[in-house]
Amino acid sequence: MNTDRQAVTVIGLGSMGSALAAALLDRGHPTTVWNRSASRARPLVDRGARLAATPGEAVAASPLTLACVLDHPALHVVLDPFAAALAGRTLVNLTTGAPEQAHEAAAWAGSHGLDYLDGAIMTTPPGVGNPETMFLYSGSSAVFEAHRPTLAALGDPLYLGADPGLASLYDAALLGLMWSTMTGWLHGTALVGAEGTPATAFTPVALRWLTAVAGFLTTYAPQVDAGRYPGDDATVDVQIAAIDHLVHAAAARGVDNALPELLRSAMERASAAGHGSDSYASVIEVLKKPADAR
Amino acid sequence: MNTDRQAVTVIGLGSMGSALAAALLDRGHPTTVWNRSASRARPLVDRGARLAATPGEAVAASPLTLACVLDHPALHVVLDPFAAALAGRTLVNLTTGAPEQAHEAAAWAGSHGLDYLDGAIMTTPPGVGNPETMFLYSGSSAVFEAHRPTLAALGDPLYLGADPGLASLYDAALLGLMWSTMTGWLHGTALVGAEGTPATAFTPVALRWLTAVAGFLTTYAPQVDAGRYPGDDATVDVQIAAIDHLVHAAAARGVDNALPELLRSAMERASAAGHGSDSYASVIEVLKKPADAR
Repeated sequence: MNTDRQAVTVIGLGSMGSALAAALLDRGHPTTVWNRSASRARPLVDRGARLAATPGEAVAASPLTLACVLDHPALHVVLDPFAAALAGRTLVNLTTGAPEQAHEAAAWAGSHGLDYLDGAIMTTPPGVGNPETMFLYSGSSAVFEAHRPTLAALGDPLYLGADPGLASLYDAALLGLMWSTMTGWLHGTALVGAEGTPATAFTPVALRWLTAVAGFLTTYAPQVDAGRYPGDDATVDVQIAAIDHLVHAAAARGVDNALPELLRSAMERASAAGHGSDSYASVIEVLKKPADAR
Repeated sequence: MNTDRQAVTVIGLGSMGSALAAALLDRGHPTTVWNRSASRARPLVDRGARLAATPGEAVAASPLTLACVLDHPALHVVLDPFAAALAGRTLVNLTTGAPEQAHEAAAWAGSHGLDYLDGAIMTTPPGVGNPETMFLYSGSSAVFEAHRPTLAALGDPLYLGADPGLASLYDAALLGLMWSTMTGWLHGTALVGAEGTPATAFTPVALRWLTAVAGFLTTYAPQVDAGRYPGDDATVDVQIAAIDHLVHAAAARGVDNALPELLRSAMERASAAGHGSDSYASVIEVLKKPADAR
């Protein structure tokens, strides 16, 4: 074990917490673990982790603690009894939650003299430790910079800003993009599958197309920031005409059309709001908070 | 002009047809054009294209004709009067349409002794001529192979199979993936934008995340083909819990929630159908034609 590495504590040994501890052990960090049911710690102890008897003992063992438990209320149940002992240490909370919960946790930590970062893990447990995997962090930049070398053991650490809610907010936004993309892919896969095309034949074409779609997003992002959506490449009205082909083709093959119908409805609302000759990026205008409520 | 290049005719000079003719001229193909209103041909004639007086004269000028008109009925209006003169030539129909229209056009072409390919252009006009751009073709493989070198002037030609409807079917499926992805991105952009994050700050993170999502699709494609969806990485029930964070975060910021609510509903239907412990790929089971109707 490389004793130059910072000691780290991991609280919560579900599959994700266990993957975090394993990645730290792999990089030679002295690692202390705690879990509500201690039996989950055995594989990590076999690899050199130290099992603490209480959360308080666990946090006291290292300057840096990573928490990855079921939810924010569970985090309080675990740490509140030991709050007085936390001062001067750093808590990086990788528990999934809402931005409001991150704000609340940051305030709680501050009231106990505990440095706090909120984080979100953009992978499933097998992706932990891969330097390509994004870990999102928000909160104090000084705390982030102090612990960046250690956080790099888990994946590629991205700092989003001082507002501790940003990691959770990005997490939700990115997962929404994932579900939208995966469901669009499944819908297309069902459509071509109705004519006998295997998913494994369609998917390489779909992935190549996604790289083109990524180019459209790069084009559209500055349009969103400017609030102006020149439809030089393809207009909302052209897309409305094109989506009718998808709706009819899916209907003819018995594929559920709720998703394309929702997308068409969003485009039609954008067109009705005066964006028919604008680019698809203008659809954001009908997704955003209504102007009179901002 | 390189006279080794095959002569090609382009019927229909909207912005896409004009881009096709321009790409052929750029590669040195003797190019004949026709459009309902001849004035659209002027920029191409200035670059060396020959303007035909009638569609019949245009098709007679080249062994290969590309058609890119408003829709399939428009194609018939243009070519039906000259059908007798088409025998022995090849028509590549890049007009957007339904798979059923491609079948009908292929039958019409066959009845006149005309070789036929159906195609779909996976870009906007500025992307024509880029060797990275996908052009999808379906119909006779012999006809495709005979003209592949010429079709490569337009982009990267991908052959999908003998069924002439495949290019239109893939086109619809891929555009559906595009709209889903773009709308998911716009929703996420609206969400982080409500807290002041610019689209140009969120989008590079979103694009990097999309490469991770592409990896999930690669993992899930063989699951779809096998009809078995092991939830080793993340289950439908875990995603249902996670999407509630998105729905609540969006609702709290006044962002329209129709898309995440539809996605949650699809997941809940998959879970109710027994896929709660399966991977997200199992959601295709609730999108596909009901088993009793297949």
